[in-house]
Amino acid sequence: MIKKRIYSPGPVDVSPYTSLEMARPILHHRTKEFEAIVAEVVEGLKYVFQTKGDVLVFASSGTGAMEGAVCNILNPGDKAICVRGGKFGERWSQLVTKFGGEPVDMNVPWGQAVDPALIESALKADPSIRAVYIQASETSTGVASPVKEIAGIVRKYEGTILVVDGITAVGVMNLPVDEWGLDIVVGGSQKAWRLPPGLAFASVSEKAWGFVEKCTQPRYYFDWSKERKALGKNTTAYTPAVSLFVGLRQVLAEIREEGLDALFARSASYAQAFRAAMVALGLRLFAPDSPSDSITAVLGPEGMDAGLIVKHLASKYGITIAGGQDDAKGKIFRVSHMGYLDALDMITAVAAVEMTLKELGQPVELGAGVRAAQEILVQA
Amino acid sequence: MIKKRIYSPGPVDVSPYTSLEMARPILHHRTKEFEAIVAEVVEGLKYVFQTKGDVLVFASSGTGAMEGAVCNILNPGDKAICVRGGKFGERWSQLVTKFGGEPVDMNVPWGQAVDPALIESALKADPSIRAVYIQASETSTGVASPVKEIAGIVRKYEGTILVVDGITAVGVMNLPVDEWGLDIVVGGSQKAWRLPPGLAFASVSEKAWGFVEKCTQPRYYFDWSKERKALGKNTTAYTPAVSLFVGLRQVLAEIREEGLDALFARSASYAQAFRAAMVALGLRLFAPDSPSDSITAVLGPEGMDAGLIVKHLASKYGITIAGGQDDAKGKIFRVSHMGYLDALDMITAVAAVEMTLKELGQPVELGAGVRAAQEILVQA
Repeated sequence: MIKKRIYSPGPVDVSPYTSLEMARPILHHRTKEFEAIVAEVVEGLKYVFQTKGDVLVFASSGTGAMEGAVCNILNPGDKAICVRGGKFGERWSQLVTKFGGEPVDMNVPWGQAVDPALIESALKADPSIRAVYIQASETSTGVASPVKEIAGIVRKYEGTILVVDGITAVGVMNLPVDEWGLDIVVGGSQKAWRLPPGLAFASVSEKAWGFVEKCTQPRYYFDWSKERKALGKNTTAYTPAVSLFVGLRQVLAEIREEGLDALFARSASYAQAFRAAMVALGLRLFAPDSPSDSITAVLGPEGMDAGLIVKHLASKYGITIAGGQDDAKGKIFRVSHMGYLDALDMITAVAAVEMTLKELGQPVELGAGVRAAQEILVQA
Repeated sequence: MIKKRIYSPGPVDVSPYTSLEMARPILHHRTKEFEAIVAEVVEGLKYVFQTKGDVLVFASSGTGAMEGAVCNILNPGDKAICVRGGKFGERWSQLVTKFGGEPVDMNVPWGQAVDPALIESALKADPSIRAVYIQASETSTGVASPVKEIAGIVRKYEGTILVVDGITAVGVMNLPVDEWGLDIVVGGSQKAWRLPPGLAFASVSEKAWGFVEKCTQPRYYFDWSKERKALGKNTTAYTPAVSLFVGLRQVLAEIREEGLDALFARSASYAQAFRAAMVALGLRLFAPDSPSDSITAVLGPEGMDAGLIVKHLASKYGITIAGGQDDAKGKIFRVSHMGYLDALDMITAVAAVEMTLKELGQPVELGAGVRAAQEILVQA
């Protein structure tokens, strides 16, 4: 018997309780019953995004909400800083280019976080820059950005907004939208929300709505004004992904019950434990200086294709993790700390990595990683 | 005890077998296992669309595929005929306008089908028209279009393609994409596919790909060339709605087992039986001359708000049908004949309408509609 376990940075495991909830008979979306679900879901999303402002929901993957955060904001010719320190930072830049904007690319080595001072001097040098696009947690590298500091800088510029890809951050790390003044934060259902993929979210500040109103870019399915108007009536502009909404209601109730502080602390303890374990095994972290608490990227042992670890975990232990993408292919493996998982799941992941390294002929002290993780988890 | 029954034109009921399938543990989408599912799903979609060409899949509602059929096809300034005989025909026109095209609106009274001769003369008068946008089945009115005749006309124009909204048609009515030369046909998962909403489909002919290649319109999430390239490797450009894919595999296997001819004949018999029942009850059909086999729109009794029938069916009998939209609000009610339902479900719907009419004080002979439906169903 080999159980299937998934520790990829999305999709994450879905709880059987959520699966059962989603297996309930289908609802029509233009009914009072579904309107009540929309209302409850939106309230729950506002709680997790920590905002009194709008949180929109789309039937799409996270990329759809990223597209919306460009085509509802920038007019052709508008300049926008894109922090490119990984695959998803590059996506911002591609999106800005695609919709006729001028990306001001801020290239950061993969594995490192952007220095907020660079953003500050870029904005000082050119205050016509309309938006700053960043990742709160860059999924491809496991780097967390100094979001609060960046927000403090952007806030000083009336004509500039901050757009945060929070796809692997919201619901894992503290990103208080209103307190920090984050204009747009994007999320996706298959991450901290512990659902199958197919729903995307975007919080939108009043400052950002001012940009939306002035945006002449053609848009229809991702027309945020239309979606805001619909949500005001507890419905959606187009047919919603009904079953995912129903699942989300259940997950949001669980998150409220646990409380955001406890959730963030728990996620952080898993990440800290996993990082300590990898270091105890003699491995190097890909982002040692600014690690994300939602996902850890680990460099493979010197001279070894990290993809072999991913493959061995899958074939021998039924465990799905992720390898490196694009530039990091073969160099790193990535393990998630978000979603439906607990402390013992993290131990399982560490133990499987240890056994895999041993079986692949690497010098490793079995149990050393587990012990390092346990020491952190018992204190948490 | 009041069971919940849904006969709305989407979402339709989801079979418990499909729900169980979708409740299986989540899969990562970048795995061999999921690639095999994508391959199987795409083959199944090609079977239902009756094409050897491409069928693309998107994590979105049907409107997302409609948007793609505009923003991948028309350049700003391009003219396109939009047949406007209902809410969704109007959506084509809105989309064309939104993306800078020039809609050549062909207004048809709600409840009637477009005369193909009008399309022929419009194309003759202005061969610069790049596309003809129609509904195979206009969900808001229950009208079926003469798709084959229109395709025969459009095919004669090398610089023009036919785009068919088949959202409530594919998998219910015969729409052989290759045989009839339909350039683009759009579908949505919550219709004949008997799934929750959240997946959209689009078949694309070689002629249409020529248009896609020449289209300079900005697009990213709905970039069809990128999606085609990904599907060629049995994957998707962006994170797919994994659980709906898994459900779709199961539904497609069921459809193949039944066979398209049997499926179309069965759907037609339900529609015919339901129409006969309504006429036997003294009600008038909204689209008597060109009824769709996926949905029947029925006018309420003279002087009565048809919305009362919809409300009574919901509150007294737990049945969800649809009322009229926009111009048809209060005038009609709409009942679906597609998806996970059988002949006895149609009888149930008829019986509930009869009892509702009686309870609302209408002169109606109980059983007359049921008998009319039975006579057709026993012959089918």
